[in-house]
Amino acid sequence: MNLKSFRRIVLLTERESTPFLAKTAISMLRYRPKDVLAVLDRHEVGKTADQVFNVGGEIPFVDSLDRVEDADSLFIGIAPPGGKLPEAWRPMVVDAIRRGMAVVSGLHHFLTDDDEFVKLAQKSNAQLVDVRKNDEKETATGKGLNPGCFRIHTVGQDCSVGKMVTAIEVQKNLQDRGYDAGFAATGQTGMMIEGQGTPIDCVVSDFVNGSAERLVKSLDHHEFLVIEGQGCITHPAYSGVTLGLLHGCAPDAMVFCYEATRPHVKGFGEIPLQPIAKLVELYETVANTRHPSSVVGIAMNSRLLTDAQYREEKQRLESELGLPVVDVFRESADGLVGAILVRRDQVTENREGAIH
Amino acid sequence: MNLKSFRRIVLLTERESTPFLAKTAISMLRYRPKDVLAVLDRHEVGKTADQVFNVGGEIPFVDSLDRVEDADSLFIGIAPPGGKLPEAWRPMVVDAIRRGMAVVSGLHHFLTDDDEFVKLAQKSNAQLVDVRKNDEKETATGKGLNPGCFRIHTVGQDCSVGKMVTAIEVQKNLQDRGYDAGFAATGQTGMMIEGQGTPIDCVVSDFVNGSAERLVKSLDHHEFLVIEGQGCITHPAYSGVTLGLLHGCAPDAMVFCYEATRPHVKGFGEIPLQPIAKLVELYETVANTRHPSSVVGIAMNSRLLTDAQYREEKQRLESELGLPVVDVFRESADGLVGAILVRRDQVTENREGAIH
Repeated sequence: MNLKSFRRIVLLTERESTPFLAKTAISMLRYRPKDVLAVLDRHEVGKTADQVFNVGGEIPFVDSLDRVEDADSLFIGIAPPGGKLPEAWRPMVVDAIRRGMAVVSGLHHFLTDDDEFVKLAQKSNAQLVDVRKNDEKETATGKGLNPGCFRIHTVGQDCSVGKMVTAIEVQKNLQDRGYDAGFAATGQTGMMIEGQGTPIDCVVSDFVNGSAERLVKSLDHHEFLVIEGQGCITHPAYSGVTLGLLHGCAPDAMVFCYEATRPHVKGFGEIPLQPIAKLVELYETVANTRHPSSVVGIAMNSRLLTDAQYREEKQRLESELGLPVVDVFRESADGLVGAILVRRDQVTENREGAIH
Repeated sequence: MNLKSFRRIVLLTERESTPFLAKTAISMLRYRPKDVLAVLDRHEVGKTADQVFNVGGEIPFVDSLDRVEDADSLFIGIAPPGGKLPEAWRPMVVDAIRRGMAVVSGLHHFLTDDDEFVKLAQKSNAQLVDVRKNDEKETATGKGLNPGCFRIHTVGQDCSVGKMVTAIEVQKNLQDRGYDAGFAATGQTGMMIEGQGTPIDCVVSDFVNGSAERLVKSLDHHEFLVIEGQGCITHPAYSGVTLGLLHGCAPDAMVFCYEATRPHVKGFGEIPLQPIAKLVELYETVANTRHPSSVVGIAMNSRLLTDAQYREEKQRLESELGLPVVDVFRESADGLVGAILVRRDQVTENREGAIH
């Protein structure tokens, strides 16, 4: 199943149209705008996607599927912690199923485990797609990755700091320069954009490293492979996912992502974030126990900063860490990709030096 | 379901009676010998458990369930990587089910997902128990643990080094001294011994930290709680499980476990183990991002050493690390528990100092 086969999509964000919760919808609007017909949220009707989300142009908000012609699918547009379907959304999902539309969900609570949805879908011949559902049951081998593929992994200070968008922007930038670069999606939103991938946070934990390794092996015919990161290595709830993915994909280079001004772990009010310099060192230490790796640049999410604040923060952090720091939307991924290419040349030279 | 309710157990280890693979059976023989009637392995018939496994006394090996009277259950006695049932074992499992015995399995491949087993069990009214099956779906909160419970976590250099037995020996030693000490089982073997627990490596990865936290909360009415560790923080296949568990249980003290003379990651021939000093530092660094913690002692598995070699290795490591080093079977857990009590007093004093 390739999720790119859906080309007439309605995004469901009813009453959850905030940047934190609606991140799946926002990323779909950013990277697949041509495939999205409308956003379903009765409370934003009359507005455009651009007005609410600063992305997605003229794509309209609608209050009912009646307002959308020939939609082929309803995508659940949120990624809430814990992954439950809001109870108030059931009627809208039911409506889509009754119309024979596919419903695509990245939630932990599966549509295909819901008796009402399953029965209705059988009647209307609608497709229910649980992006996170998987049957990964292979442990990692710790070897066999293609050394001809340079692996880049986005890691971060917290959840929702831009690890997925940074990975996509780095991939696109490499492609614009003429390189053959792939993107390995590891979360539901990345998978909806790329069409496929591995829902790493829904894999049985014994197989997390293994499923990441398998994903990389399926894509390492590329010259470059950018692997989307998850969580944070010190996150109170998700550190296991983060480390399993890091060791499974065994990156040659890492890009560290953070959001400027965020003081606490998102959703964990009292727990302060670890300092960036400390985390950069920790990611390098831990990654190197598996494969030689270093952090080559910092992707700052600066959405809460003015231009002047951005320049100041960038300069401060660049001199503290000695690494390029960029917001890929405010500027571009050029600074990161420049550092990645330097690292790639070093790695290649070292390897050739070792061989000759 | 409490697995201690089975009191007339046959352990199945057919053709797999090696210490590495049969570790579940061996631990059952060590900690629940009164509940075990026999070990089923046609290739060892005539021998006792003690002769084959150095534990379990006169408990006999048998070639058929016919030789065992009134057995209530067949326990799958192995823990193979990947967790598949050996094909050759199906007839023996079928035989037990036909007799109406419960079959208890810690494998990743569930008995209750096997059509043949399920149908037969319905007929004979036999119970199929998948120890690893779980429905953990709560993320960690990073808070709410009882500060009056001192949490001890066994961590290690690799799989199969003695993290579970060290945890149990520490618990028993604390109990012998009159303390109220609980044991939190996190793997199938620990759960079979303790009766219950959380099969941490079979939890969906997003909920690993959360399930460990929940397990601790269910047991932190004890004065001490010893939490069984899993894998290794640098293990190529299982590091995600290890870290999620470590952050979820947020230990006050850690005991580091290793096997003397093991050079490589078990089952990963070419991959060398990380040095002990480096791992001790890494565990402390990573644990402290969640909760103040330190490694207070080293549990050496010295089964491959002579007495003289043991004394030499112990002395070498004690002077390198400045920590007590013991093999809990060769000596006792006294050295570890002494260090745990010192650490507990320090933590309590610091907390009281902070309050007054």
